[in-house]
Amino acid sequence: MHHPEVEIAHVTSHSFTGKRYSSVYPNFNQRFNGICEEEDIEKLADDSDVIFIALPHGIASKKLTKEILNKVKIIDIGADFRIKNKKTYEDWYKTEHESPELLEQSVYGLCEWKRNKIKDTKLVANPGCFTTCSILSLSPLVKENLIDLSSIIIDAKSGATGAGRTLDIGTHFTECNETTKAYKVASHRHTPEIEQELSEVAGQEVLLSFTPHLIPMQRGILATCYANLKDSSITYEEIKEVYNKYYGKEYFIRLTEKGIFPETKWTRNSNYCDIGFTIDRRTNRIVVVGAIDNLIKGAAGQAIQNMNIMFGIEEKAGLDNIPISL
Amino acid sequence: MHHPEVEIAHVTSHSFTGKRYSSVYPNFNQRFNGICEEEDIEKLADDSDVIFIALPHGIASKKLTKEILNKVKIIDIGADFRIKNKKTYEDWYKTEHESPELLEQSVYGLCEWKRNKIKDTKLVANPGCFTTCSILSLSPLVKENLIDLSSIIIDAKSGATGAGRTLDIGTHFTECNETTKAYKVASHRHTPEIEQELSEVAGQEVLLSFTPHLIPMQRGILATCYANLKDSSITYEEIKEVYNKYYGKEYFIRLTEKGIFPETKWTRNSNYCDIGFTIDRRTNRIVVVGAIDNLIKGAAGQAIQNMNIMFGIEEKAGLDNIPISL
Amino acid sequence: MHHPEVEIAHVTSHSFTGKRYSSVYPNFNQRFNGICEEEDIEKLADDSDVIFIALPHGIASKKLTKEILNKVKIIDIGADFRIKNKKTYEDWYKTEHESPELLEQSVYGLCEWKRNKIKDTKLVANPGCFTTCSILSLSPLVKENLIDLSSIIIDAKSGATGAGRTLDIGTHFTECNETTKAYKVASHRHTPEIEQELSEVAGQEVLLSFTPHLIPMQRGILATCYANLKDSSITYEEIKEVYNKYYGKEYFIRLTEKGIFPETKWTRNSNYCDIGFTIDRRTNRIVVVGAIDNLIKGAAGQAIQNMNIMFGIEEKAGLDNIPISL
Amino acid sequence: MHHPEVEIAHVTSHSFTGKRYSSVYPNFNQRFNGICEEEDIEKLADDSDVIFIALPHGIASKKLTKEILNKVKIIDIGADFRIKNKKTYEDWYKTEHESPELLEQSVYGLCEWKRNKIKDTKLVANPGCFTTCSILSLSPLVKENLIDLSSIIIDAKSGATGAGRTLDIGTHFTECNETTKAYKVASHRHTPEIEQELSEVAGQEVLLSFTPHLIPMQRGILATCYANLKDSSITYEEIKEVYNKYYGKEYFIRLTEKGIFPETKWTRNSNYCDIGFTIDRRTNRIVVVGAIDNLIKGAAGQAIQNMNIMFGIEEKAGLDNIPISL
Repeated sequence: MHHPEVEIAHVTSHSFTGKRYSSVYPNFNQRFNGICEEEDIEKLADDSDVIFIALPHGIASKKLTKEILNKVKIIDIGADFRIKNKKTYEDWYKTEHESPELLEQSVYGLCEWKRNKIKDTKLVANPGCFTTCSILSLSPLVKENLIDLSSIIIDAKSGATGAGRTLDIGTHFTECNETTKAYKVASHRHTPEIEQELSEVAGQEVLLSFTPHLIPMQRGILATCYANLKDSSITYEEIKEVYNKYYGKEYFIRLTEKGIFPETKWTRNSNYCDIGFTIDRRTNRIVVVGAIDNLIKGAAGQAIQNMNIMFGIEEKAGLDNIPISL
Repeated sequence: MHHPEVEIAHVTSHSFTGKRYSSVYPNFNQRFNGICEEEDIEKLADDSDVIFIALPHGIASKKLTKEILNKVKIIDIGADFRIKNKKTYEDWYKTEHESPELLEQSVYGLCEWKRNKIKDTKLVANPGCFTTCSILSLSPLVKENLIDLSSIIIDAKSGATGAGRTLDIGTHFTECNETTKAYKVASHRHTPEIEQELSEVAGQEVLLSFTPHLIPMQRGILATCYANLKDSSITYEEIKEVYNKYYGKEYFIRLTEKGIFPETKWTRNSNYCDIGFTIDRRTNRIVVVGAIDNLIKGAAGQAIQNMNIMFGIEEKAGLDNIPISL
Repeated sequence: MHHPEVEIAHVTSHSFTGKRYSSVYPNFNQRFNGICEEEDIEKLADDSDVIFIALPHGIASKKLTKEILNKVKIIDIGADFRIKNKKTYEDWYKTEHESPELLEQSVYGLCEWKRNKIKDTKLVANPGCFTTCSILSLSPLVKENLIDLSSIIIDAKSGATGAGRTLDIGTHFTECNETTKAYKVASHRHTPEIEQELSEVAGQEVLLSFTPHLIPMQRGILATCYANLKDSSITYEEIKEVYNKYYGKEYFIRLTEKGIFPETKWTRNSNYCDIGFTIDRRTNRIVVVGAIDNLIKGAAGQAIQNMNIMFGIEEKAGLDNIPISL
Repeated sequence: MHHPEVEIAHVTSHSFTGKRYSSVYPNFNQRFNGICEEEDIEKLADDSDVIFIALPHGIASKKLTKEILNKVKIIDIGADFRIKNKKTYEDWYKTEHESPELLEQSVYGLCEWKRNKIKDTKLVANPGCFTTCSILSLSPLVKENLIDLSSIIIDAKSGATGAGRTLDIGTHFTECNETTKAYKVASHRHTPEIEQELSEVAGQEVLLSFTPHLIPMQRGILATCYANLKDSSITYEEIKEVYNKYYGKEYFIRLTEKGIFPETKWTRNSNYCDIGFTIDRRTNRIVVVGAIDNLIKGAAGQAIQNMNIMFGIEEKAGLDNIPISL
């Protein structure tokens, strides 16, 4: 709501229809007086330049049509248009895809890697949180053919906001405070999303292991990525040069100095992705650690960044917060 | 202090000499009235049947001698006698070992795997917290030759008690709350300890990647272990059978059911190690997750277990707490 | 389940009927193999010496009858039999009381103050968590007529387990982590319970202000109690003498030394109530701080203590845990 | 660093002289490249329009002189110039005041109540965190003579950032996580500060009880304030009218609706103070709850607000963040 080029036309909600948004989120008192409306996508399409959709999977693909896309740009924060292969989507999401004809025109909105395509589309599939952090961390290595593609393991840690606000005993304070666990081991739906994008970067199929963990904190994703190096004599500096090649000029990606690994708090409340790495000479592996705020670069922030790109606005408009580490 | 066979003869402390123990730890009010004494190992050796030592590395190895070991049994919770190879110790700990002549008689006190040797020694090197959890999780697979030994990766998560009570800005509440980070990536001193023990189990040298992470919680270690399976057709049930072979009768190891992965809270305040696993068929990897309470099975609890074994006391005496998950 | 005199005959549950208790609470794996049964109070009464009831208010008073109480002793952890005055109960709980005829024989189970009555009853109303901590903290002052009864203010802080396991957005991790709030200000149902008991101790009606707050931690209640002193020249030592008179021999109440105020962690996982106080000379007020573990002394622990008293078992049997401060 | 009218000339530090500010606080990477300089107040005074001082008590009063104040405006975030009465300062701070001649010209920088004086001074004493929240919550009641001045009790709760970054075992994660405690009961140095300002508002001396508590969270102060109402028939609406009179047009003060009490998270990362209250008819007390972010409205944010007032800049410039409740 600080974005200089944006005016909010409508806010819709299924659970809170008719309520003041600030009565649901009182931190917005005296800052945003909008009322949560019932969703009517036709009306939204008529009144708006862009619609942000954040719905459980399977719903956005039901609602969206070519006619709507003729009237308005869409940034879908949900999962429906991320997986290009209909069968892969249906295998992992256990539901039929309702608008496969739109898959072709949707663009996977990982801004730093898809900027040109995002500019030209009307439908952006905003990436998942784990996927954003993982793909950004690994893509330069994949692109430059530095690692054995069959050796990739991503061990990711997420704060509890990753689970959303759905009522569930598993995300009760007393259940997830003071403990940590792995979940959806070898079966999390962000896996095919990461594989799709790294495969595109690699020019060949990539399969990998991905394990998410729940951490007792509000925000933040840390992805610890492992892969075998193809060249056992490559130096830290050579690899740093590769990261600089891809990210040196990226405003929202910050590379840490040698020996420093990112903490999630360094990115909190910002759209940054911080990345650090080391070479484990003894095992000839590289360990790359990426950190983001799952609610910003991993969701709403990247959605704004996508909007900025789609409309030709300065890419960091509305996204210029300095992270809050306390 | 609930142990039926134990009487505490002395408690010593460098920082709190002369203070009532319960004034330092007021939870012990009206339960333990001992005074922290200055350490005098000769006196302790004369007065006691067993001494528990918990000192920074390099100190215990200076203090211990064959003469002392003739008088008393020693359980060293520190690192000095864990690494059998003097050079390996010195490489990782950056200090000379002061009593290499004792290394041979010391026994690495991982109770479930070294019970017979522990019975017969006077010097037990109590394992580190990460190592206990990691070795217990992987040893059956290594012993039965089920995994590619060059493919082992251990991604571990620890609560903040793992760092001890030393004054350090990094463990201040405001610094480590609401964030997570990897630390000592590819350089943590528990690495050679895990490698030593898995190598012994394997009968050949094992090198692996180990990455610890700091989690904003008090207690608990979760070790997420990855390895490539040698036989891509092996079933969950076959591997479960292997775990049952080694741990089915172990009181302090609990195997979770298929599809369930341990949380650290299930072991909190207990001496249990909970272990679960799955096969990631797509990548032909096994993912094993182990959980312990770093202060109990990862430190003081295993030390008691070692004492019980050394003195022929029932192994679970004093260690029978049901975990507290809230 | 460590209690030397107890055998568990039945565990019942509405939500988990038919499930293994340890599948709901996996920390009990290999320690308790009971199945959650459907509740049938007649059957329970026939099979058991004592029934512990923990139900939402209004339900226990519907189920209990004189006939059942002829067969079995009851310890009700819920609120139905705490308030002796039917009208007061109905005013605060907004529901009719279904078995007012049992109110007379029920005993308010605050062990340290009602021991003799507890011995002789078949129906104990186990006190609430806030009330236990508040009444224990203030009763000696009230009993000895040291404070202005119209000046009592209790500002209490509770960990999130105080709210139980009911699904509610307010107790989601992301909602109650990293924040604190007052709730049910001047309207919390523990208020009339505290007033009833202090009135009985005072021999006259006591009205007071009580404000609970939610703290982002698992367990623990801290009650900060304020009252004006009647005698402005009374000394710390004189008041300490009063506390010693009532609590000096109580196993589960520990008085802190001058200048020391209890922290909730000093009582965690124990049945202790720790109490400290100071005189604020400038305002002629006393400030008393009491701390308990809300799940132990504030609920299940005190219920066990009540059982021990009712059956003539040693009062601390099964309750002898040393608090865990980490 | 987002302030449209501000350019940072120097950052000084005792502990980090010579280091890049962003190496100490890596969240500032690529956003602020300043180096921590050794402090030289003469040089700062020559180069700057305003100096923000944040030093332990007793130091700023040593450094500041009339000559410096002739050259530059000062906003002292420390305690040295808050207490106008030299003796009161020395009684509570146990140290002599080194520049009592400056006390008269210093203005207590509680913006909403001292705006006109702040405009005209060169030396602002920025209020403490507890004091800001407490005085804002109570002043309207005091000003309109609605409460018994001898009955005020403030029970305050603070996140751990309130303690600063000094190395201290008490603020280690494992010491202050999962617990709560009262500290400096009846002896905290913010007491005379609150009393001074409320006395000024009242036009007569006010003495009150103030008890701070440490809460396991990063940021936030909640002040629960109690006082006896002079008129037992006054209504909620009449009192709300009084609050509206003083705060209805204040940008940084938000009054909650009837029945709603502020949570600290509603103000997090913002300069807001949220205030709610209720009348406890049974005891004829009012309970007022105020919430702020201790690092913003309770420290740096109010300092910026003071700067804006001193320099005639729009009062909310650089302070317009929407609170972050997750």
